[in-house]
Amino acid sequence: MNKIVMKFGGTSVAGTEKLKNIAKIVKSQLKNNKLIVILSAMAGETNKLQSYLDEFQEQNSIESDLVLTSGEQVTIGLLSVALKNLGVKSIPLLGWQVPILTDENYEKAKILNIDKKRIKEYFLNYDVIVLAGFQGINLTGKITSLGRGGSDTTAVAIASAIDAERCDIYTDVDGVFTTDPNIESNAKKISKLSYEEMLEMSSTGAKVLHTRSVELAMKNNLTLQVLSSITNKTGTFIVDEKELIEKEIVSGVSYSNNEAKVSISGILDKPGISAKIFGLMAENNINVDMIVQNISQDGISANMTFTINQKDYDLTKTVIENSKKLFDYKSLSLDKKVAKISVIGMGMMSQAGVAEKMFKTLAKNSINILAISTSEIKISVLIDKKHTNIAVKTLHEVYNL
Amino acid sequence: MNKIVMKFGGTSVAGTEKLKNIAKIVKSQLKNNKLIVILSAMAGETNKLQSYLDEFQEQNSIESDLVLTSGEQVTIGLLSVALKNLGVKSIPLLGWQVPILTDENYEKAKILNIDKKRIKEYFLNYDVIVLAGFQGINLTGKITSLGRGGSDTTAVAIASAIDAERCDIYTDVDGVFTTDPNIESNAKKISKLSYEEMLEMSSTGAKVLHTRSVELAMKNNLTLQVLSSITNKTGTFIVDEKELIEKEIVSGVSYSNNEAKVSISGILDKPGISAKIFGLMAENNINVDMIVQNISQDGISANMTFTINQKDYDLTKTVIENSKKLFDYKSLSLDKKVAKISVIGMGMMSQAGVAEKMFKTLAKNSINILAISTSEIKISVLIDKKHTNIAVKTLHEVYNL
Repeated sequence: MNKIVMKFGGTSVAGTEKLKNIAKIVKSQLKNNKLIVILSAMAGETNKLQSYLDEFQEQNSIESDLVLTSGEQVTIGLLSVALKNLGVKSIPLLGWQVPILTDENYEKAKILNIDKKRIKEYFLNYDVIVLAGFQGINLTGKITSLGRGGSDTTAVAIASAIDAERCDIYTDVDGVFTTDPNIESNAKKISKLSYEEMLEMSSTGAKVLHTRSVELAMKNNLTLQVLSSITNKTGTFIVDEKELIEKEIVSGVSYSNNEAKVSISGILDKPGISAKIFGLMAENNINVDMIVQNISQDGISANMTFTINQKDYDLTKTVIENSKKLFDYKSLSLDKKVAKISVIGMGMMSQAGVAEKMFKTLAKNSINILAISTSEIKISVLIDKKHTNIAVKTLHEVYNL
Repeated sequence: MNKIVMKFGGTSVAGTEKLKNIAKIVKSQLKNNKLIVILSAMAGETNKLQSYLDEFQEQNSIESDLVLTSGEQVTIGLLSVALKNLGVKSIPLLGWQVPILTDENYEKAKILNIDKKRIKEYFLNYDVIVLAGFQGINLTGKITSLGRGGSDTTAVAIASAIDAERCDIYTDVDGVFTTDPNIESNAKKISKLSYEEMLEMSSTGAKVLHTRSVELAMKNNLTLQVLSSITNKTGTFIVDEKELIEKEIVSGVSYSNNEAKVSISGILDKPGISAKIFGLMAENNINVDMIVQNISQDGISANMTFTINQKDYDLTKTVIENSKKLFDYKSLSLDKKVAKISVIGMGMMSQAGVAEKMFKTLAKNSINILAISTSEIKISVLIDKKHTNIAVKTLHEVYNL
């Protein structure tokens, strides 16, 4: 008897017709397997609940998590009905009924423990457990939520806890693509990808999987499959690097339009000035990505450029403007009209010239590079937003994707 | 320290503005009291959830109760936020978090036990507990619901369990009226009413309180108050008969348009025939109310007339038509164009002539009586639906209401 975890997101469960379709997909996976199906709330439902909370400016509390976790209760109940109607022995469970024990951090709780024994007991009487994603219960008996995208995390955590053969994440696309098919029609579905590559892709803009869930899968060496709930085709498997026989030098090109560039010029260049600036950012929970520092031509002052998430635009501006006492500078400019383009691949580690090819390609297309950041399996550059499409298309071509 | 239970229904909690208003009402009742506030789901929400279930023709199951009880989770969370914003120490709780233990009957569960100790503990840290109405948990850890109108029952059960001083049921009317103000503009709010009178009024059409909740209050001798969440006036108190110093002969006139009349004529009059007919009704869960039996003029056959709830119209027709083997009859007719008019009052018990006055009044207005049923404190008659308004108005007048 194998155990498989299947997860369906909000667009896949929006309405009774879609739930009936999912019931058929679930039944088709039964054979001799026991299944845990993780569901989100219907698309739009969590936004509606969030809007109620916004009217009260309420967040990160017992109350906000109680309100936000009510949507899954509806979808799991209805899918279990649809399964029973197909003759499948099914039981719906909420997070606290397993229980999925979490810490006390409302709206961003971390899973501490999952009661495997209880799941085993349910599998004595039922073939399918339909489980509410996104939610758990803390030690004081309050409902908690894992944060937006948390259903992916529930799926991976459950799959790891019960030693599932794999965890299938159903979405509205066929899998992970070499780049965004909306920009490059030649984008191809990737059949296998390492956790590291998927992580880099997630964090650089490919919105297929929640980063936390990929990290958790990697930690537990759990095979993930990203596939479509519509087309019924094999999707993209996300596996351990060792299982990738032939490592692609570049697996994909991703982009992100959520960055903003911050430039501070004429900083008095003293030791510790970087620590001061980035200490200030950290204090205010502003994540900083790419950093470029130049000594200016006068040899005394420096210019500092870095990127932040666009949502922190206003906060960053205020924080730096109010910090003149901490460090002196001549001018500050912020720019949202930038894009981050990344090429990602496991093969890069053992292959020289990948970065060079990227820079040359961009130069040939007269695209200016504003900042660079690299990891072992990723090169990212910041460019003017208007060049996004041409950069993605030409890079996709030169790396033969 | 007194404990007061307050209950607000679906129309009172539909939307954030209304919830803010309720928070003010709740705060005004705090003083030195500890409060438990029972809420329904937002008006329309339970209907939406019911419609999902109807699409699957699902009822009375783990799944249906899971789906139906999701709405209160939203309202209790939001009201607790609104209370915190007014500086009130408040905690939201779901049925299972108390827990409110029920039996296993999905969609019509009965409360078995309420954990008073836990409520006491919460009152050490909080002044207000905002509790989800309508729901509980059974011994196997599944969520159950108490049936439509179940929030009234939750309120009364909680108030009884914690020895609350009283239980205030907030609605969109000022209290219980001598009759429906929409029909008779001279209808007056009743200041005090016995449980028995309220029960008769509920079951004969005044839709203010759920019958089960009144029965439970009577059993526990708990004072109920029905009052408006809009006008902030003292409402109608429902108390033990002994507390009514001056018993009104007739307290109110109520009516119901939900009845249907069933007439079976030409039944072969043998001993046990009534038992057969009403046994058949009971087997099919059809509630029978007024019963009139006449021997027909031939002296051999009998005519039987009784009333049922309109929702059982089709079922009753089919059941009787298919029962020719059980008992023979000449013809069957069903009629929805009837109304039940009732006069209710504790003083009736010790006062002759109440029924006579009713029959005379109706006769004077040329209203034919199709059936009669009486209890110690109630007289009901079945009439043609078209006479409803004139019957209510004239009866309201002759009893000086």
